[in-house]
Amino acid sequence: MIKAGIIGATGYAGGELVRLLMGHKDVEIKWYGSRSYIGQEYASVYQNFFERIEDKCLDDNIEELADAVDVIFTATPQGFLASHIKEEMLEKAKVIDLSADFRIKDVKVYEEWYQIQHKAPELIGEAVYGLPEINREAIRKARLIANPGCYPTCSTLSIYPLLKEGMIDPSTIIIDAKSGTSGAGRGAKVDNLYCEVNENIKAYGVATHRHTPEIEEQLALAAGEKVMLNFTPHLVPMNRGILITAYASLKKQVSDEEVRAAYDNYYGKETFVRVLKPDVCPQTKWVEGSNFVDVNFKIDRRTNRIIMMGAMDNLVKGAAGQAIQNMNLLFGLPETEGLLLMPMFP
Amino acid sequence: MIKAGIIGATGYAGGELVRLLMGHKDVEIKWYGSRSYIGQEYASVYQNFFERIEDKCLDDNIEELADAVDVIFTATPQGFLASHIKEEMLEKAKVIDLSADFRIKDVKVYEEWYQIQHKAPELIGEAVYGLPEINREAIRKARLIANPGCYPTCSTLSIYPLLKEGMIDPSTIIIDAKSGTSGAGRGAKVDNLYCEVNENIKAYGVATHRHTPEIEEQLALAAGEKVMLNFTPHLVPMNRGILITAYASLKKQVSDEEVRAAYDNYYGKETFVRVLKPDVCPQTKWVEGSNFVDVNFKIDRRTNRIIMMGAMDNLVKGAAGQAIQNMNLLFGLPETEGLLLMPMFP
Amino acid sequence: MIKAGIIGATGYAGGELVRLLMGHKDVEIKWYGSRSYIGQEYASVYQNFFERIEDKCLDDNIEELADAVDVIFTATPQGFLASHIKEEMLEKAKVIDLSADFRIKDVKVYEEWYQIQHKAPELIGEAVYGLPEINREAIRKARLIANPGCYPTCSTLSIYPLLKEGMIDPSTIIIDAKSGTSGAGRGAKVDNLYCEVNENIKAYGVATHRHTPEIEEQLALAAGEKVMLNFTPHLVPMNRGILITAYASLKKQVSDEEVRAAYDNYYGKETFVRVLKPDVCPQTKWVEGSNFVDVNFKIDRRTNRIIMMGAMDNLVKGAAGQAIQNMNLLFGLPETEGLLLMPMFP
Amino acid sequence: MIKAGIIGATGYAGGELVRLLMGHKDVEIKWYGSRSYIGQEYASVYQNFFERIEDKCLDDNIEELADAVDVIFTATPQGFLASHIKEEMLEKAKVIDLSADFRIKDVKVYEEWYQIQHKAPELIGEAVYGLPEINREAIRKARLIANPGCYPTCSTLSIYPLLKEGMIDPSTIIIDAKSGTSGAGRGAKVDNLYCEVNENIKAYGVATHRHTPEIEEQLALAAGEKVMLNFTPHLVPMNRGILITAYASLKKQVSDEEVRAAYDNYYGKETFVRVLKPDVCPQTKWVEGSNFVDVNFKIDRRTNRIIMMGAMDNLVKGAAGQAIQNMNLLFGLPETEGLLLMPMFP
Repeated sequence: MIKAGIIGATGYAGGELVRLLMGHKDVEIKWYGSRSYIGQEYASVYQNFFERIEDKCLDDNIEELADAVDVIFTATPQGFLASHIKEEMLEKAKVIDLSADFRIKDVKVYEEWYQIQHKAPELIGEAVYGLPEINREAIRKARLIANPGCYPTCSTLSIYPLLKEGMIDPSTIIIDAKSGTSGAGRGAKVDNLYCEVNENIKAYGVATHRHTPEIEEQLALAAGEKVMLNFTPHLVPMNRGILITAYASLKKQVSDEEVRAAYDNYYGKETFVRVLKPDVCPQTKWVEGSNFVDVNFKIDRRTNRIIMMGAMDNLVKGAAGQAIQNMNLLFGLPETEGLLLMPMFP
Repeated sequence: MIKAGIIGATGYAGGELVRLLMGHKDVEIKWYGSRSYIGQEYASVYQNFFERIEDKCLDDNIEELADAVDVIFTATPQGFLASHIKEEMLEKAKVIDLSADFRIKDVKVYEEWYQIQHKAPELIGEAVYGLPEINREAIRKARLIANPGCYPTCSTLSIYPLLKEGMIDPSTIIIDAKSGTSGAGRGAKVDNLYCEVNENIKAYGVATHRHTPEIEEQLALAAGEKVMLNFTPHLVPMNRGILITAYASLKKQVSDEEVRAAYDNYYGKETFVRVLKPDVCPQTKWVEGSNFVDVNFKIDRRTNRIIMMGAMDNLVKGAAGQAIQNMNLLFGLPETEGLLLMPMFP
Repeated sequence: MIKAGIIGATGYAGGELVRLLMGHKDVEIKWYGSRSYIGQEYASVYQNFFERIEDKCLDDNIEELADAVDVIFTATPQGFLASHIKEEMLEKAKVIDLSADFRIKDVKVYEEWYQIQHKAPELIGEAVYGLPEINREAIRKARLIANPGCYPTCSTLSIYPLLKEGMIDPSTIIIDAKSGTSGAGRGAKVDNLYCEVNENIKAYGVATHRHTPEIEEQLALAAGEKVMLNFTPHLVPMNRGILITAYASLKKQVSDEEVRAAYDNYYGKETFVRVLKPDVCPQTKWVEGSNFVDVNFKIDRRTNRIIMMGAMDNLVKGAAGQAIQNMNLLFGLPETEGLLLMPMFP
Repeated sequence: MIKAGIIGATGYAGGELVRLLMGHKDVEIKWYGSRSYIGQEYASVYQNFFERIEDKCLDDNIEELADAVDVIFTATPQGFLASHIKEEMLEKAKVIDLSADFRIKDVKVYEEWYQIQHKAPELIGEAVYGLPEINREAIRKARLIANPGCYPTCSTLSIYPLLKEGMIDPSTIIIDAKSGTSGAGRGAKVDNLYCEVNENIKAYGVATHRHTPEIEEQLALAAGEKVMLNFTPHLVPMNRGILITAYASLKKQVSDEEVRAAYDNYYGKETFVRVLKPDVCPQTKWVEGSNFVDVNFKIDRRTNRIIMMGAMDNLVKGAAGQAIQNMNLLFGLPETEGLLLMPMFP
């Protein structure tokens, strides 16, 4: 059995990690870290686990944790892991970081967008960006995984094949994203109250959202050139789910079949990326609770643009599910172990 | 592997059966019956199963089906199974009926409340009411299971121990129930449109809902006397979940601890019924997607009444999950097989 | 023009007062009191009023306010008004209190249920309980109005005629209430976050909710005897609306027509209480945004109980609308002035 | 008093017309046309009007109606009005058409996108596109108003000033739109059931939505050149509201202040278009139930694009409210008469 510890276990992503790991036959959770709830029963914070989990919340002493477990998941605020990680820990336990600390290779870009000084820049080089469909082999050998952001996962997977195949012009990419409210976390803020979010939709972080440089870096790797794009997230009155609608100009004359072949080329053998049939639009509900990303596209011949769409559960493939997918790779398990839960509908 | 067939596979309960059976290691679904979608791919009706299920929908020929499978689930309108079942089928396959056809032992009561003539009254006696926490041993030996209604499951489990222990006066029971909208089915009706249900709550079927006699029959068995009660269901703007709030007068002076002991006496060893800690109210969200029923109570000394509460996912413990729990018992499998999915939160 | 001041203008009830008063032709708001937002533009807190309101938030100096306006609305936490009110103020301005401070005549009951020492018990006697359909004449002459609680308004109006006519047994009353989330206020608490409330229903304050004694006091006045009842509120995933479902045993043999006549007797001439046609259940959506209360009933001959139902917008008839209805009476205006907004559907 | 008749009074837009006209002091509704509900009380279809409207539904005989009223609102399926309108009617009554029949000047474009043969092409030239903020003077003199579509209203108003001022490149416009579910109408379809829409978001009509040519035509008038753009609508789990997020490349170097000045130039005196303060994103909730459109913008210097945002209630400014605004202009009333309802929050 793999021994796992979670720091930040009482946030929504932490709770989802617990839900999924409870169904993973090779893992046992040894450490429920939560600074705010130290000493309280974990199942009193998340009553869904009542009678299934007896443990109490522990603090976030990552050093002690590294001695106790094989893998550490950090679902913590930006800057936490970079401030606390030390090289020696990585010799004891694998670390899968759900924060942004090690996602961006250029430390200046990180510091500019996050307005935080990076405290462990020496480890950025080693960290592997944990998007298995793209970086599978590097992940297998890693010690430190930068688990991708929710928006970047869905955006990158939806656009990647067309950039890779040179079908679209990178300078024309616009990503209009919509997210359920769990992405905003469990903090008590007026903006996230039921009555403020319900029956409402708005854009936020327009032209300034921190996931922008992460998406640009990943797409630049695919394009083989620098990418600058527009990314606009919106808050949608639902608990879970991200839908991205991305636009780009076609660089050359391509048929629907050629585009489909490009997607199939990259995802034909991928369990978790499903290229939908022609004219079926991805819907977040069809992937809820699962690790799937549903993608599809539509070419508009009038404007010579292609519309790329992707739907995903932000807490699963966008956070905890992908973290476990990475863990499976790190420990040589079948990649889908514990992750074949069917989406729940309705 | 147990071979299973589903009639009514494209309703919400049918879809949930499929979701849960996909995660059951001992079952394979051989027949997706759906009169409305014959010949269409099942995964085109429920896109959550895209790439996971290749099968097409078949018709509802239950006789042919009985030859092909070990167990038949009928998630069909009232009257369907009674009209089509024949004794010989039960020699070939176990039948688990999610409709109301065989739930009520008194055929006159059934015909009066359902306004249907019962076409197979000779099988009512044999059918076993499939509430495992109460009828476990009878279920194991049955051929035909009457899978309980959603409201009756939650109501009965919440009230049963106190009636059994003679703590409450049966003539004073009032059940105020609240259900998510999936309970209304997938039929296209104006009343179930998003804009009609959303931001709205109403009672319906007041003093006339068909689950009333089913609840009364089960509680009468517990009380050892005839029970007549009020049952008022309400439609709540959410997909899943049933909450029942039941009221009764205490027959004798009892302490909180004695009441708790009564619940523990019946449910202490039950995996799927969770008696919450004092002063924790059941919430439907804490059981969503799972087979758990969370129950608790509060005594009001001022009025000498007890308030009994139960929360459950109507599609799981209230339908498909309970059906699989019954199947596990019928086939000698561990009762919780395939049913230990943790509730999804948020 | 009547000059009005609001203390607590940035809570949900305060915001609703502003919305409704903006459409009242005889009132101008001179004071937007909000301790938390002093100096900020009111329309920056409630953007719905952008370009329609220029004023900034002021503090909650009720003494100064009494000099500046004709009527003061206090939408403040329990205890605030009792701590700050002085007899002299009532000579300068009418006060309509949306808190519970002056609703309950028995100060001991207030102090016991609210766990607050009442700081102005000498004014309790003078205060008039502002339920116009019952206390209209007393309201006209009052200086201090105790604006009823949301649950008590809906509960009392739904049950009152039958108690008054001696048709139901007061000792058997059970009120099962359901409320939208705006009733919980705009405070930043985890329990009120979108992801905690959405797709969820729960009871809360079981057997201990503070509106219980208020309802009991009002119903006792109707019954002419002490009333002790069960009141159980539930939190429903919607912004607005209260539905109450009340149960009582009939004291005598009555026909549907006789019960209907009792309701019509009290509400036939009331604009804001609508007795629905037979078998039409009240729905909160049908009254949203309006000052209407829709009531109806169903007799269950099997159990000899009657089910009484009422639906209302908690922020309008349950708070701000009723306050304005009281104001109209206090100032000799037509009672419906500014309150004939049609409910918004969907 | 202006006598009004409505054809299609039982759809959502029809119901909203009734709600708003009930609060309009110069109008009385004489005809509630609804083919599906002929002879039924209107208030039994929309219970929100119980006791406020006594009338029964009449048929859709537009010829008879033209004799009876001063103004006819048609909230009917595409093709209905064009099939029934005759020149003589326009001499008797003004017609405000909420369908698309007379919105598009080029009949070929209409027939291509709507797949309907236009039955009254001779009246297209006379019809005035009823967007008062742009066509005010022409509207005043019209007999036949083509009331704009919901998406085109919000899209056009959000983008218009910048095209008019030559600030953006028309060939780069992309409109990503999000709508509440009332836009899909009150027809009983599985796709619009509560459980299908709730907790879900999806794009639909990608690159094929019929509002595309209407938007293009209006923006072409502003740009002074042909416009081809991408328009992608999404279905959001809420009753009301449209948010559009539009993208375009800047044609020249402009400051934030210059862009703001452009908006103010066109909307500074407009009551119903509110240009929000810098960095405040429009939210649909802030305009719910009202005739306001909130717009704002953000320049992304990195990509040289501008993001234009607009929020609106699809049933008010996007349908019934705008129709009344047009009616006010047609009859020489103050343009805002009956339309100054404040948005409802929450």
